[in-house]
Amino acid sequence: MRATVFHGAGDIRVEEVPRPHAGVGEAVIRVTLTTICGTDLHIVRGEYAVRPGLVIGHEPVGVIEELGDGVTGYEIGDRVLVGAITPCGQCRACLSGQLAQCGHGHGFEAVGGWRFGNTINGAQAEYLLVPSAQANLAKIPNELTDEQVVLLADIASTGFSGAESGDVRLGDSVVVFAQGPIGLCATAGAKLMGASLIIAVESDPTRAAMARKMGADVVLNQKEVDVISEVRRLTDGGADVAIEALGLQETFENALRCLRPGGTLSSLGVYSGKLQVPYDAFAAGLGDYKIVTTLCPGGKERMRRLMNLVQSGRFDPTPLLTHRFSLDQIVEAYDLFGERRDGVLKVAIKP
Amino acid sequence: MRATVFHGAGDIRVEEVPRPHAGVGEAVIRVTLTTICGTDLHIVRGEYAVRPGLVIGHEPVGVIEELGDGVTGYEIGDRVLVGAITPCGQCRACLSGQLAQCGHGHGFEAVGGWRFGNTINGAQAEYLLVPSAQANLAKIPNELTDEQVVLLADIASTGFSGAESGDVRLGDSVVVFAQGPIGLCATAGAKLMGASLIIAVESDPTRAAMARKMGADVVLNQKEVDVISEVRRLTDGGADVAIEALGLQETFENALRCLRPGGTLSSLGVYSGKLQVPYDAFAAGLGDYKIVTTLCPGGKERMRRLMNLVQSGRFDPTPLLTHRFSLDQIVEAYDLFGERRDGVLKVAIKP
Amino acid sequence: MRATVFHGAGDIRVEEVPRPHAGVGEAVIRVTLTTICGTDLHIVRGEYAVRPGLVIGHEPVGVIEELGDGVTGYEIGDRVLVGAITPCGQCRACLSGQLAQCGHGHGFEAVGGWRFGNTINGAQAEYLLVPSAQANLAKIPNELTDEQVVLLADIASTGFSGAESGDVRLGDSVVVFAQGPIGLCATAGAKLMGASLIIAVESDPTRAAMARKMGADVVLNQKEVDVISEVRRLTDGGADVAIEALGLQETFENALRCLRPGGTLSSLGVYSGKLQVPYDAFAAGLGDYKIVTTLCPGGKERMRRLMNLVQSGRFDPTPLLTHRFSLDQIVEAYDLFGERRDGVLKVAIKP
Amino acid sequence: MRATVFHGAGDIRVEEVPRPHAGVGEAVIRVTLTTICGTDLHIVRGEYAVRPGLVIGHEPVGVIEELGDGVTGYEIGDRVLVGAITPCGQCRACLSGQLAQCGHGHGFEAVGGWRFGNTINGAQAEYLLVPSAQANLAKIPNELTDEQVVLLADIASTGFSGAESGDVRLGDSVVVFAQGPIGLCATAGAKLMGASLIIAVESDPTRAAMARKMGADVVLNQKEVDVISEVRRLTDGGADVAIEALGLQETFENALRCLRPGGTLSSLGVYSGKLQVPYDAFAAGLGDYKIVTTLCPGGKERMRRLMNLVQSGRFDPTPLLTHRFSLDQIVEAYDLFGERRDGVLKVAIKP
Repeated sequence: MRATVFHGAGDIRVEEVPRPHAGVGEAVIRVTLTTICGTDLHIVRGEYAVRPGLVIGHEPVGVIEELGDGVTGYEIGDRVLVGAITPCGQCRACLSGQLAQCGHGHGFEAVGGWRFGNTINGAQAEYLLVPSAQANLAKIPNELTDEQVVLLADIASTGFSGAESGDVRLGDSVVVFAQGPIGLCATAGAKLMGASLIIAVESDPTRAAMARKMGADVVLNQKEVDVISEVRRLTDGGADVAIEALGLQETFENALRCLRPGGTLSSLGVYSGKLQVPYDAFAAGLGDYKIVTTLCPGGKERMRRLMNLVQSGRFDPTPLLTHRFSLDQIVEAYDLFGERRDGVLKVAIKP
Repeated sequence: MRATVFHGAGDIRVEEVPRPHAGVGEAVIRVTLTTICGTDLHIVRGEYAVRPGLVIGHEPVGVIEELGDGVTGYEIGDRVLVGAITPCGQCRACLSGQLAQCGHGHGFEAVGGWRFGNTINGAQAEYLLVPSAQANLAKIPNELTDEQVVLLADIASTGFSGAESGDVRLGDSVVVFAQGPIGLCATAGAKLMGASLIIAVESDPTRAAMARKMGADVVLNQKEVDVISEVRRLTDGGADVAIEALGLQETFENALRCLRPGGTLSSLGVYSGKLQVPYDAFAAGLGDYKIVTTLCPGGKERMRRLMNLVQSGRFDPTPLLTHRFSLDQIVEAYDLFGERRDGVLKVAIKP
Repeated sequence: MRATVFHGAGDIRVEEVPRPHAGVGEAVIRVTLTTICGTDLHIVRGEYAVRPGLVIGHEPVGVIEELGDGVTGYEIGDRVLVGAITPCGQCRACLSGQLAQCGHGHGFEAVGGWRFGNTINGAQAEYLLVPSAQANLAKIPNELTDEQVVLLADIASTGFSGAESGDVRLGDSVVVFAQGPIGLCATAGAKLMGASLIIAVESDPTRAAMARKMGADVVLNQKEVDVISEVRRLTDGGADVAIEALGLQETFENALRCLRPGGTLSSLGVYSGKLQVPYDAFAAGLGDYKIVTTLCPGGKERMRRLMNLVQSGRFDPTPLLTHRFSLDQIVEAYDLFGERRDGVLKVAIKP
Repeated sequence: MRATVFHGAGDIRVEEVPRPHAGVGEAVIRVTLTTICGTDLHIVRGEYAVRPGLVIGHEPVGVIEELGDGVTGYEIGDRVLVGAITPCGQCRACLSGQLAQCGHGHGFEAVGGWRFGNTINGAQAEYLLVPSAQANLAKIPNELTDEQVVLLADIASTGFSGAESGDVRLGDSVVVFAQGPIGLCATAGAKLMGASLIIAVESDPTRAAMARKMGADVVLNQKEVDVISEVRRLTDGGADVAIEALGLQETFENALRCLRPGGTLSSLGVYSGKLQVPYDAFAAGLGDYKIVTTLCPGGKERMRRLMNLVQSGRFDPTPLLTHRFSLDQIVEAYDLFGERRDGVLKVAIKP
């Protein structure tokens, strides 16, 4: 089959690799739509290490092609969405409700739930082996197209979790730092959960416009205004929740400084280096601040819930899908996506 | 193998039945210790319907005899504890954290997590087939004996959950209605969670004494005192949490009447008939009362946590194990247990 | 001053009474808008006892006329909204976060937070004494009219709390029984919190239409369809949350029967008599069901949050205000409201 | 009256100052017992700025001497405990349940709940003015002595909150960094809440011994063992909760590194400078870690609950009270306490 293989920093190729087959508890799906994630860029740039030879990508929509022993209630040909995170459901982490830190049948493993395109072959390919299939195959309602659901596998699930982990309550004020795909979904999530004021921070005009479409009441351009004082003014003393969706010291620190005492910083970004928590930004530890981090929630029940939100019209991810490519054009798609050319937000890849 | 088979109301027999074998995702254990539960009595008395021919019992300690395909990280011969509730970990209920309402790979099923001795063969036998083995085999630390862990499978897990679902907080006052094995463990659970005042309600002097041992500060005999006014007096206006551990209209109603406004009734009992919530007992719906019900939490992570509590000396269930029988004597054990003769609390059954 | 005085069942009169003055910690407001609540009807009908001579009504919008000693940060002439529930903030209940069960400086008191028109003079008058003024005077933003905020004092706060206490999460299915003013706000609250499917149960066509406007995806007419089976079909096995907004055995019981295992019944209704919980409707106590009841959340911070939701356009309560009367016409307004004539939902009363 | 007055770094003196009188909503107590807190040391050393002329100290036990207008339900002569944090109960923060960030009638104020010896005169004096008296005077049961309750005002309330904010659950493993008075109470709190394994980190042998007395199962000497690897070994992969009770980069960072994925760092320390969160220590933001900080919970309901725990024998703070001084000897007491001489943990100061 054709697949996108990582060969080393800066070197991915679409090439022929053996087609997978389903073992006990597994399934194989024929991928009908996938996309490229910011994390894939980190891999291709050599900033996040995976083994050479790995098929990358972790956002699959497809059709069931094979079902291994022990997987029940599905039929060959069922259309399914599979989350980027594929919990086993049967380890200590999963049984504790922490599906993203899945220990594959046993304890906890940091980031263990993220397997596709990280520790096992991924979704930018014609076929995909799905581990723990019983816990991860989410049937797609007939009413929904592949394009309507493909962004739920990761960015919507992650973005929404920023609002959920921040425990956004009716009437809260929320500030969201950065309006890339994840940040835009965090904005949409805050709106869905009943925030009364959503402030997005973004300098790119296309993304700022999309932020308003996703629910932002105000968009602040950090290159033009003092974000911290402006958020404090708009919220009368600080936001209840700040969501960080970029992964930089600056956005992390500003998110903390925008909070009212007792507020929550909900962090989605992937950081590198020594992140600093200035002591004055959290009242030297006496301000009752919370900092929570969240990795994309996965599993078929999460996917079912997100598809329900799309089906009932509560959330429409399709405006984020700005470009379309075939699998054979994926190197070109990576280039466009990586360079943020042409107003790209997310690309659809069709094997 | 020898097993305790239900043949109809009032008719159980220890007889020879075929030994089970492990299919995909399953295990077979050789049972080394089990016990009889109040629910088993309901079954034997014909008050709770199961199919004739079923092997009953749901509290197994044993040694792994067979491992089916797809079960990893265990060895034949490992000593294991299996909870009364055996969640699959991969259905909508389990992935939502509601393991006791397990839908066996798919949706929710009321009481679906309770399979042993209910919908599949149970533990009062020489061998036991364990479904969803990866999620349910909890290795027993070498330091713990079978007798130290057998009561964790159901009564300790259930009893503790009464305090947990009631959300007992540091300094709370808690009243526990009835001090059978479940109620005694609810008392112990309230103590473990930091309640400052635990009032047990029980008229049987042996059980009252055991209640004190398990952590009750006060034991009220409902035949001698007006429990409601006494609880109100001791708690200066009503308990923060009331735990019901019997399943009668009277205890349910009294539990509600003992609460302060905004208090929580945590119900563990199994009810029959039309349960009544007198409108005056919960301020006509305006008192911010909560009524929560809980079925025994299961799964190997729950068992691991409970074994840790025993191992560190926080909780000692062995005083509750008052009598010992061989499997062949189990009909006699049922009789003693059902009649509550000889100060019996729980019986150990050794196949 | 002119005020609506309760003289006994069926006998309310607008008459002259002494104007109140502010003591320590109190304020007096000149009422500029108020309304009639279903609870007021219960009082007038003699179904809920208050002392004869009491001024009734508990939903005030007004202007500060007097400030007692110890109240700071307000000016005479400030426009304020005061919630129906007026917590003191300083008793055991308030300091525990249970403001509606306020003990007025000391312990817990059932329904103690509801004072206006219940235990002290109420809002259907020209002037109103506000106890614990520091905790209860919520300044109204200039951008909002009296009509935009008057329904927040009780029905929006109560209705939303049905969804909040039910802990509605992103993607949940919610069924709301009865679409009177409270039920309509519960529907709006479920929408605001991110439910993916909201099913309203209502037979009155005007209310059914308003339910759709407030966010219901489906409205079921209980006189035409079997609500339980229809909800089970639409939700694929039962709703995650059921909100009861009427206070009858039938709606309570149906709400319970509509739930999936482990679901939550969030009750807002005021009940009378012996409410029954059929044991089969909650799996005999083994279904992990929760029943939570909530009295209207009050206090100035709650009012501030609700006003923010109106100001940002998230919620518009004005369609519920169908009729307008002067204070002198209030007996007529009670009649119309009590008879549900002319499609009335809520009436505005202007002193 | 005699009082301990701060005159500048290194300069405190016991001298005559005017006796306070109770205004509206206030009370004056005659202090019968108080103590010195680590925070007082920071003040005296000039590390935490307060205005010269301020009376310091924030842990008062006393007898009511004056009651201002509007304070009800108390009598002159009542014995009371007042928390270090004195919430007003009526501001946005308090009405949101965040009492320590009290805005004194209005919004949120960082650390606003801490007033005694910080922004108003404090407790190391013969008399003390108590603001928001209705919310802060907690009557002491006759059965309890001053020495049994004085440590509840701050260190027990703070220490316990480390376990509470960490959401310690039955069977959790908890590691507590540093066993000064706060850390010792955090250890006791983790025990009270049902942790199955409590690991204290402390090199001082006296404090290590006290840690065992307070509930630690294991005490690790960070000068002798590699704490991180030892905690990982003892907990089979990382602690569920880590409590930081010192306020240093090293302890903060080690606390984070001791956690299992998805664990919670509950921070009580007061930090200075740029605190660092090494990206590798929290899985680059993908490990579902939480960092929560807590300032001492206050208010009379908190004090009531803590006194109940002492009264029922669940917690005995008196072993921590190692030395006794009169108010006139307080400079000497500061010296002993600051130098940690003679195995001092906490000192009792008697005016």
